[in-house]
Amino acid sequence: MPPPNLERRAQLADAAIALLASAGAHGVTHRAVDQLAGLPAGTASNYFRSREALLIAAASRVGELHYADMETVADAPGTTAERAQRLIAQSLWLAATTYRPRYLAIFELRLESLRRPALAAALAELQERSVAATRLHHRVHELRIPPSAAETMVGLYGGALFTLVTAPPGAVTEAAADELATAIVRGSL
Amino acid sequence: MPPPNLERRAQLADAAIALLASAGAHGVTHRAVDQLAGLPAGTASNYFRSREALLIAAASRVGELHYADMETVADAPGTTAERAQRLIAQSLWLAATTYRPRYLAIFELRLESLRRPALAAALAELQERSVAATRLHHRVHELRIPPSAAETMVGLYGGALFTLVTAPPGAVTEAAADELATAIVRGSL
Repeated sequence: MPPPNLERRAQLADAAIALLASAGAHGVTHRAVDQLAGLPAGTASNYFRSREALLIAAASRVGELHYADMETVADAPGTTAERAQRLIAQSLWLAATTYRPRYLAIFELRLESLRRPALAAALAELQERSVAATRLHHRVHELRIPPSAAETMVGLYGGALFTLVTAPPGAVTEAAADELATAIVRGSL
Repeated sequence: MPPPNLERRAQLADAAIALLASAGAHGVTHRAVDQLAGLPAGTASNYFRSREALLIAAASRVGELHYADMETVADAPGTTAERAQRLIAQSLWLAATTYRPRYLAIFELRLESLRRPALAAALAELQERSVAATRLHHRVHELRIPPSAAETMVGLYGGALFTLVTAPPGAVTEAAADELATAIVRGSL
């Protein structure tokens, strides 16, 4: 067993994310991950025994990166609706541009999980953690959003991400992301 | 060349849809389609020369089925917002239950199209036709929805479909579909 090397694990998970985005779930193999990360053959399978473990590592890495970004834009002046709108608009815009591969990867995993119960269980656990993190986030940043509205908002937000991320690259405008964010907040609150 | 047999084409497209939903884009081969449809080997490739043609046929069949359903629920009393809400709620609920495979298939195709330019072009054409159909539909049924609101509504509706359809089977309630529909209409109009 190799020592627990968090940096190496993240590097392998990032390669799996890139493969998911460019080639789909089917393109993620230990061999392809090693090659893309520029590591010796066998590295990925030392860290992640099965393909499923590799896919789960990619999912959990996307969650980690997503929440780190959310934190950076949460502190801002304005009412709850204004701040939620800005947060969602910025997140949708980044997802459609800079961070597109990361969200393509999670949507590939979401579809793949319907055929892989272990992956589905891992994604459900991530989702639970993410709902808990969102609640804490709302409390810390004093966003007063009732729980049922938050559920609708998260459903619409995740769906809008899919709409934008799977649009042809370059087809999404910042204005379109803004309008979706406004509609999501106006609709859920 | 076989004679243009529309029924046989639909039968093959339906088998492709079922395979997309159960096994992903990777599972759609001429051979698997023939087997699932209970037809002699070679039938699918007589009708659809390439795998891409088969995938495009599946996409266009989903569009056809989707619009046929939309028509059946469009005529109802109430204001534009009430009728749009009811139409969207019913469509989301059916998509999450009875018609789940059909929508899973279209989402598989949407992700696959990012790696297949010919499929992407076919889906874009379908999308254009569907936007035109939606506009006509709104005019015929006197739903007064301005074009920019319609675009936001379609984006949120498609996203909500993804959220519900990729949830674990049985996890979606009719109340959740209703709440999403209400938020979509309130947010976009």
